[in-house]
Amino acid sequence: MENGTIKRIAVNTGGGDAPGLNAVIKAVTMSAIQRGWEVYGIRDGYNGVFLPAQYPNGDGVIRLTQEIVKDITAMGGTILGTTNRGNPLKFPMKTANGTVVEVDRSDEIVEGLKRYNIDAVVAIGGDGSLTMANEFHKKGVRIVGVPKTIDNDLSGTDTTFGFDTAVSFATECIDRLHYTAKSHKRIMVVEVMGRYAGWIALNSGVSGSADVILIPEIPYDIKKVADFLNGTFTEEKDYAIVVVAEGAFPRDGGYAVIEKEAGKSERLGGAADKVVEQLSHLVKKEARTAILGHLLRGGSPTTFDRLLSLRFGAAAVRALEEGQSGVMVAHKVPNMTYIPIEEAIGKLKTVNPDGETIRTGRELGICFGD
Amino acid sequence: MENGTIKRIAVNTGGGDAPGLNAVIKAVTMSAIQRGWEVYGIRDGYNGVFLPAQYPNGDGVIRLTQEIVKDITAMGGTILGTTNRGNPLKFPMKTANGTVVEVDRSDEIVEGLKRYNIDAVVAIGGDGSLTMANEFHKKGVRIVGVPKTIDNDLSGTDTTFGFDTAVSFATECIDRLHYTAKSHKRIMVVEVMGRYAGWIALNSGVSGSADVILIPEIPYDIKKVADFLNGTFTEEKDYAIVVVAEGAFPRDGGYAVIEKEAGKSERLGGAADKVVEQLSHLVKKEARTAILGHLLRGGSPTTFDRLLSLRFGAAAVRALEEGQSGVMVAHKVPNMTYIPIEEAIGKLKTVNPDGETIRTGRELGICFGD
Amino acid sequence: MENGTIKRIAVNTGGGDAPGLNAVIKAVTMSAIQRGWEVYGIRDGYNGVFLPAQYPNGDGVIRLTQEIVKDITAMGGTILGTTNRGNPLKFPMKTANGTVVEVDRSDEIVEGLKRYNIDAVVAIGGDGSLTMANEFHKKGVRIVGVPKTIDNDLSGTDTTFGFDTAVSFATECIDRLHYTAKSHKRIMVVEVMGRYAGWIALNSGVSGSADVILIPEIPYDIKKVADFLNGTFTEEKDYAIVVVAEGAFPRDGGYAVIEKEAGKSERLGGAADKVVEQLSHLVKKEARTAILGHLLRGGSPTTFDRLLSLRFGAAAVRALEEGQSGVMVAHKVPNMTYIPIEEAIGKLKTVNPDGETIRTGRELGICFGD
Amino acid sequence: MENGTIKRIAVNTGGGDAPGLNAVIKAVTMSAIQRGWEVYGIRDGYNGVFLPAQYPNGDGVIRLTQEIVKDITAMGGTILGTTNRGNPLKFPMKTANGTVVEVDRSDEIVEGLKRYNIDAVVAIGGDGSLTMANEFHKKGVRIVGVPKTIDNDLSGTDTTFGFDTAVSFATECIDRLHYTAKSHKRIMVVEVMGRYAGWIALNSGVSGSADVILIPEIPYDIKKVADFLNGTFTEEKDYAIVVVAEGAFPRDGGYAVIEKEAGKSERLGGAADKVVEQLSHLVKKEARTAILGHLLRGGSPTTFDRLLSLRFGAAAVRALEEGQSGVMVAHKVPNMTYIPIEEAIGKLKTVNPDGETIRTGRELGICFGD
Repeated sequence: MENGTIKRIAVNTGGGDAPGLNAVIKAVTMSAIQRGWEVYGIRDGYNGVFLPAQYPNGDGVIRLTQEIVKDITAMGGTILGTTNRGNPLKFPMKTANGTVVEVDRSDEIVEGLKRYNIDAVVAIGGDGSLTMANEFHKKGVRIVGVPKTIDNDLSGTDTTFGFDTAVSFATECIDRLHYTAKSHKRIMVVEVMGRYAGWIALNSGVSGSADVILIPEIPYDIKKVADFLNGTFTEEKDYAIVVVAEGAFPRDGGYAVIEKEAGKSERLGGAADKVVEQLSHLVKKEARTAILGHLLRGGSPTTFDRLLSLRFGAAAVRALEEGQSGVMVAHKVPNMTYIPIEEAIGKLKTVNPDGETIRTGRELGICFGD
Repeated sequence: MENGTIKRIAVNTGGGDAPGLNAVIKAVTMSAIQRGWEVYGIRDGYNGVFLPAQYPNGDGVIRLTQEIVKDITAMGGTILGTTNRGNPLKFPMKTANGTVVEVDRSDEIVEGLKRYNIDAVVAIGGDGSLTMANEFHKKGVRIVGVPKTIDNDLSGTDTTFGFDTAVSFATECIDRLHYTAKSHKRIMVVEVMGRYAGWIALNSGVSGSADVILIPEIPYDIKKVADFLNGTFTEEKDYAIVVVAEGAFPRDGGYAVIEKEAGKSERLGGAADKVVEQLSHLVKKEARTAILGHLLRGGSPTTFDRLLSLRFGAAAVRALEEGQSGVMVAHKVPNMTYIPIEEAIGKLKTVNPDGETIRTGRELGICFGD
Repeated sequence: MENGTIKRIAVNTGGGDAPGLNAVIKAVTMSAIQRGWEVYGIRDGYNGVFLPAQYPNGDGVIRLTQEIVKDITAMGGTILGTTNRGNPLKFPMKTANGTVVEVDRSDEIVEGLKRYNIDAVVAIGGDGSLTMANEFHKKGVRIVGVPKTIDNDLSGTDTTFGFDTAVSFATECIDRLHYTAKSHKRIMVVEVMGRYAGWIALNSGVSGSADVILIPEIPYDIKKVADFLNGTFTEEKDYAIVVVAEGAFPRDGGYAVIEKEAGKSERLGGAADKVVEQLSHLVKKEARTAILGHLLRGGSPTTFDRLLSLRFGAAAVRALEEGQSGVMVAHKVPNMTYIPIEEAIGKLKTVNPDGETIRTGRELGICFGD
Repeated sequence: MENGTIKRIAVNTGGGDAPGLNAVIKAVTMSAIQRGWEVYGIRDGYNGVFLPAQYPNGDGVIRLTQEIVKDITAMGGTILGTTNRGNPLKFPMKTANGTVVEVDRSDEIVEGLKRYNIDAVVAIGGDGSLTMANEFHKKGVRIVGVPKTIDNDLSGTDTTFGFDTAVSFATECIDRLHYTAKSHKRIMVVEVMGRYAGWIALNSGVSGSADVILIPEIPYDIKKVADFLNGTFTEEKDYAIVVVAEGAFPRDGGYAVIEKEAGKSERLGGAADKVVEQLSHLVKKEARTAILGHLLRGGSPTTFDRLLSLRFGAAAVRALEEGQSGVMVAHKVPNMTYIPIEEAIGKLKTVNPDGETIRTGRELGICFGD
């Protein structure tokens, strides 16, 4: 497929919600229309082309127009839906004898795209969606990825959209929890998202004046945390805020925890519950948890995320116009650029324990549990 | 003590935090200064006069000036602190033989007020603080109460400050949880404050487009809730939001719950956890909890609450000027008035299950579990 | 037309935008669907039925479903549009000789409603739209009005939706202007909406800690304003905030202004400009204007307005079900009720200069220019 | 003065307000306390040491403690004040014959610092304050600058605090103006700050879905703007939003404007008024102005700005510890670094008309007037 032959592109969104998805869709749509291309939105990940029977009205793929995208920049969620019914690369199917096997049905999607005469695709999604995009690229689909993770843990790009919104709301919640903690003279242990990387905990904890911040990159020593907290309590300041990333974990074996446990907590709240339980033996104050995880995924994107999303979307269309495929748009401050998807996936971007923001936190008097 | 002889008043805040406390303090201060009175703030409930030894710098009672209160209207928390060390009416003290008994030490507070030449007091607080204020009134202290409860469950006043702020933030959180619920195809069970009254759950649930709202005033039938939810799921809408007041409880004995259990949940999250557990047997979707309780107490008051608080504070000073004592300021839309504290305390204002807002909720298609 | 025979209703929105319109539409739609009725939305005031040629796709009237209204509660604006092309009661038309005359074309709308088999109408709008609704009522159309004015100046109802949102945003802007005024040592004269009534200025000014509030109900004496301001400036506080309603006016003839001038300012900013000009002769500080009018009409409704709007919409459908027509839903705290439209229109609800809120303002030390 | 000998530092804030000043003060204070240093805040720029007579209570310089800075991160404004009474380098003084001359009184400040035994200074301010800091550096004062401009137009640093807050609020206002513009079918011409650089206009205009963005870096052709606008109006979309930087100007001589006029507008609103006047001849729609300038300077910093400010403050103390002087902290994503003040001052960072964000804007269909 040659550069310049594009007449019709598709865009889709996969995985969990992230504020800014609609702004990316808008930018893709407007940028493509400016070039005289037609734009189609695939519903629910790839379902719109993969499982058309689920769309009896034939709206598994919808034409995106200027009118449709005009007012969506500030809307949370995605007008296209994100929910795949299973991974098409490993689709669970029943065999004749009743056992379930995983089947690669990605060719059906490639054919589905052809059926709609789609010349190229902008795939917005996280690690899983980008892996899938790369497979399609190998099968000859002209495709460009836009990275999506509110955890900000994707390698290869300086920032991702949704992260600023998540940090902002987490900080607002932490601000409010100061009042509760203070009037009840308690320790509030606030858990935020971040299974493998502590970016949200770090940025919201520093901005929200936390006393302690625990992240997966710095396994914590609960005794040091407790000693620190006991040292901060005064007549005037008899409460504390501890911000914990979902994947934070204690470093000693005293609690039978090993490093690889990081990020394995079964459910939201696990990390905070563990901290509360451990602290109960070591500090005299009551400690309570507040689990913010569920609250951080939704909502209208901040202005920062809106602009970032629009730039990601426009850059994706530029990449397609330049004949790129198999690449992901990456934000390298101050510009947008492209890198091979292969370089981006499977590698986490984690917090540098000796980096400038952690150092700032320490200089502000925050304890990181080490 | 005669009307017109006031030269010096005190103001204090007791109990949990509520957005608007500082605005009440400002209005009391400014209104009193306009009348040529001096105003003093008692620190930490009554501690500032009761336990002066805790304030080695002699700042248990501080002079409030126009300068000090100028910019506090929009600030969350209270510049005076709320935390009593125990109820002075039932103060725990050790006897000679080591047992602990509850002693009435309220006379020490009355004397403390005299020591500072306080002619009258504005006491801002909830049921407990108002009860205490009434005791002081009986002991000859000229005192006017300002009601404080973000649950809006205080009898005798149409509205209380802090409630609009709590409902607003709860609604914002529910808005965000729609996105999480949708992208994960889950039922989110959101617990909000309201041990005895469902006002916050009702108002935030209706405003936040909940599918189900469970409040203490309407014991719920979990089977009806489950049937309702199962009936709402479609291809397009395969998630749900259930808002639960802290004190909501099931009506049948199947779960060994009796009416008097309402409001007895030991900790935040109990009501939501119960709903999730019960639903797990009855619906096929995953259900998860989000506990907002801790988040709703703090933060900057909404404009509605700011104005209401300022009006409460100014009305309290007017009441003192008119020679009132033992009364509580009450909001009877559209004006402020006074009622005897005795009429206000100990009586809950609960949601009328046949009232207009519940009816609106039903007409919007919301299920109340009955 | 008998009670109980309703099968199909229509809803429309007229006049300027007000946050909460979509919530009313949602409540009307859901409440009607609950009763087994069909609901249609008329586009752009009555244009959808009046001037169908403007809707070549035949979408001048659209079916409203649960799906369509599901997520609109928190959206600003109105999904139906508000813009009439001229008043159908006085529609400008060209005669044969080229002059333009005003023609009553309301019968075409009545016929248009019949063409769609509309049994009853919920008309959401201000004074003009309600007057029109009353005309349709007289012509036999079963119609219930929902009052809309963000100025809160409509007689017959305690509150109207959109007002709380306007006051909230005005207050947020005033909060911010304190910083600008302070760092530049200036007087900021902030103009807000309120041509005939000072509700927005009063509530936002008191909540936003204004020094001076000028409203149409209290003609101001600029010399008193200047003297007051000159008296407030100190080393510590060398700036001021003056909040002016659009329709505020000076009371003396020195500026050749007469009472009936109130509300006649040709354009936003006129009232503030006049104050700045007058103050320039009387105070030594620079004064600048900030005109908020345009900013106050839009945006997502506050939770307070969301709930109020939903209750208005549900009450309108209840009124239709009860066989009412020619009435307007009115909020009489704490319930919704109905009053004849004739009692509501043409009468302003203005601020009582001796009322409780003004009194609170004075006790806070605010100058009202008198 | 040797590295390591620091025992006592001072911090001050100069020039206009910017959200984040208090967070910088907090970080400077906490970072210094961590190192065992004492920290003092100079009031009102340098007034606290320069004109001590203005502080009769001797509080021209105040000790900053952990207690004082604990809760200031999220507060707008500056707890120290910013207002110099005149530039100490060019201080206006009356001579014997009554004429006024400008005198360099900076030595008095150097002496004032010595009087308080200040070993080093962190000076937070814009171009003027940094120039002054450099002068003090030359006179032997150990001093590090922190750049402050909400216009984001300071050379040498990728970002400055306060900018994200200003862009965020401008975008929120533009969002709201869409509703007003739409319901009145008007063109809203929104003026934002940016005398020499169009950063705020560009970022808020793109995020806020403006139709046209006019910035100083791209002199505009009003005819092209009018033609563009006339081409965008449809039945569905009969309104428009034009965002104008304060310093935007037309490129042709038809309006007798020359390039050097950029940034010379005498007062806020000039640029918007000119656009409205010019458009009135060329488009049929009404156009109105909304001047946001005054609103953008104040308010609580966004989370982004909080974190940035804290990092700036901590980095300034690190610079002092390392023995730096005459340098300014600069944000070079992702880290903080230092550059000589001389390299930073007097050079503007303007929008690149061919850069990636402008390009994104064009691809979104936005007109930049060229």
